[in-house]
Amino acid sequence: MDGIKDKAAIVGVALSEFSADSGKTELRMSCEVIKAALDDAGLVVTDVDGLVKQSEDASDEHAITSSMGMGNLTYFGEVKWGAAPCAMVLRSAVAVAAGSAKCVVVYRAVNGSSKLRMIPSMKTSGQMSTSDLLQWTFHSPYGLMTETGSVAMLVRRYMHETDAKAEQFGWVTTVCRENGARNPEGLYYEQSITLEDYLASRIVVDPLRELDCYKESDCAAAFVITTPEMAKDLKQPPAVIRGCAQSMVGETERMNSYYRPDIARLPEVGRVAERMFRMAGVRPQDIDVAQLDDAYAPLVPLQLEELGFCGRGEGAAYCEGGDRIRLGGEIPLNTSGGSLGEGHIHGMNHVVEAVRQIRGTSTGQVKGAELALVATGAGGPAAGLILGR
Amino acid sequence: MDGIKDKAAIVGVALSEFSADSGKTELRMSCEVIKAALDDAGLVVTDVDGLVKQSEDASDEHAITSSMGMGNLTYFGEVKWGAAPCAMVLRSAVAVAAGSAKCVVVYRAVNGSSKLRMIPSMKTSGQMSTSDLLQWTFHSPYGLMTETGSVAMLVRRYMHETDAKAEQFGWVTTVCRENGARNPEGLYYEQSITLEDYLASRIVVDPLRELDCYKESDCAAAFVITTPEMAKDLKQPPAVIRGCAQSMVGETERMNSYYRPDIARLPEVGRVAERMFRMAGVRPQDIDVAQLDDAYAPLVPLQLEELGFCGRGEGAAYCEGGDRIRLGGEIPLNTSGGSLGEGHIHGMNHVVEAVRQIRGTSTGQVKGAELALVATGAGGPAAGLILGR
Repeated sequence: MDGIKDKAAIVGVALSEFSADSGKTELRMSCEVIKAALDDAGLVVTDVDGLVKQSEDASDEHAITSSMGMGNLTYFGEVKWGAAPCAMVLRSAVAVAAGSAKCVVVYRAVNGSSKLRMIPSMKTSGQMSTSDLLQWTFHSPYGLMTETGSVAMLVRRYMHETDAKAEQFGWVTTVCRENGARNPEGLYYEQSITLEDYLASRIVVDPLRELDCYKESDCAAAFVITTPEMAKDLKQPPAVIRGCAQSMVGETERMNSYYRPDIARLPEVGRVAERMFRMAGVRPQDIDVAQLDDAYAPLVPLQLEELGFCGRGEGAAYCEGGDRIRLGGEIPLNTSGGSLGEGHIHGMNHVVEAVRQIRGTSTGQVKGAELALVATGAGGPAAGLILGR
Repeated sequence: MDGIKDKAAIVGVALSEFSADSGKTELRMSCEVIKAALDDAGLVVTDVDGLVKQSEDASDEHAITSSMGMGNLTYFGEVKWGAAPCAMVLRSAVAVAAGSAKCVVVYRAVNGSSKLRMIPSMKTSGQMSTSDLLQWTFHSPYGLMTETGSVAMLVRRYMHETDAKAEQFGWVTTVCRENGARNPEGLYYEQSITLEDYLASRIVVDPLRELDCYKESDCAAAFVITTPEMAKDLKQPPAVIRGCAQSMVGETERMNSYYRPDIARLPEVGRVAERMFRMAGVRPQDIDVAQLDDAYAPLVPLQLEELGFCGRGEGAAYCEGGDRIRLGGEIPLNTSGGSLGEGHIHGMNHVVEAVRQIRGTSTGQVKGAELALVATGAGGPAAGLILGR
């Protein structure tokens, strides 16, 4: 399991502008952001010999190679679902560690105004696997038609079991927006909110409010992953992969998992935590800053519990008031704003921000941050990453 | 690059019945064949900690885990296109070599009568990436609507450049059917053909005949990949991965590549060959038996050239008469029948047959076979595999 520890590093990252309408194709967005990530690293297109993508991404690998002039790929493949950002890093790190590629680029672009959306409320049959379609036939007659609906069910149960309150969840969004307000690259620059704003936001699917949920935005992101040896000569200090893991358990469904004794937990995140902490040889209290999956604010407390930052059932109280999770607190979260305060690119910006923290260049910089954690995928398959200097 | 050599082995394989209508869902087919592959290895479902699938496969990983009771996956992901079988082995071997999983299952099931076909003549937009859709807008107005059409164009150019003749291509199908006729598990058991049958078969897209092209069939296949250490205690002699590679070059398209100076070559296969022979430390003449991508018979000579079994432009003549490529010849090909003589499961059966050859259990056994080669993906992204004892 220690085969990848310190065997790969993120040496270049880039994030495009977040917007409601980029006016560009996903292919163009991907090419531009890959170029920017390579520039960031001090590498050129012909250095790339691996590409890893999100399965649902609009641009196939060969569209990237032919558009950009990458001449010789020796490794390529895909990963699905919300866990993808960290899982794509794992996929790349494993390839670099095993020598199947030296320089792997991970990319993702979303253009909400284009045909292909990742999470439409009802997908066309061609966009779903047969197995997913079969699952939907069980949910949809009962009105469970959207991702938000299934998250709501899990959150309601969590509130019942742990006494968590909306007032506590609200601090997650409030702190994310506080961080986003400092980030001129994000969608919510200088637009912080108060807990009262949160509580006044309309219910979307009870108990979820509008300000609990991510908004789709157009954006593209890319990371460059290479060997520590190659990383030495590049432009940026490398963010070395200390631990990286993914998890799916017996009852995991695509987004939420109804077929287990306790639906108000994220056992996949717990497994990821166990594995990546062991790989990195560190404990939760050693982590300086964390970027958690905040597509839905109330799932952040559940992740804090599974990751060991607090005990079972204590996550919501941990977030209350925001002091423990904001800059200067015990574990500053989503320091660029995350999905709720920077923009939503399916967790890709969370990895970019973790790299910024290791480099010391975040607009929400944790002073002297040496270990940055990322978790992607809350409710379905999960993946996580611990970066160090 | 040598990071995966001898670091992983195929220890279990299974292939379902080939049929025109299985009467089963893909999910059931996949679960049954995974169970059979684990039985073959002497492993149980709870030993599995990794799943690798073909992106277009109907059954997501979580459908497999929940249906079969796999409790703890630490690695999962996908690969696309015709190269997938060997590329999925690479993906698994890399994970096993880097310690991200100990026991990875690769699976694929096709049910032609179900909604999801891999290669319909016109896909619905939801089934294609945006970048593929864009490509189609260039081809389709000129009538290039099918995969067979694009292969035909490449083959016509190859015939023009090398003087290859239909009479020579015909020996590929004839030898595949000769092998298939010996294989009671295949669709063409005791149904060999003659060159005259081949020449009498109707033209589908000039110059391709019906007997040049695979026919879709229902089938499922699975392989189990694990460490050499774990392999020692299992039921079957392991087929050790000596070399494994994938390739995409600058001008690669999904199926055929029109945007390069010479369209009648398969440079991706050439790159795979160079890389996997170097990794394995062997030469083409060391290989005892090969399973090549025979979805289209005329692409077999091109692969023989790229793999170094003969010189450029000599592939078709090499196949003439069949003596060099049949059992007892210089390089016996597709010894279970392949796509043309056993059945079409997108190259998965080619890997299964290579494992049988290493175990000495094929119905077209090459006596004392020590090195078996597999190539999947001819015309687009490619991958290859060299198995040894």
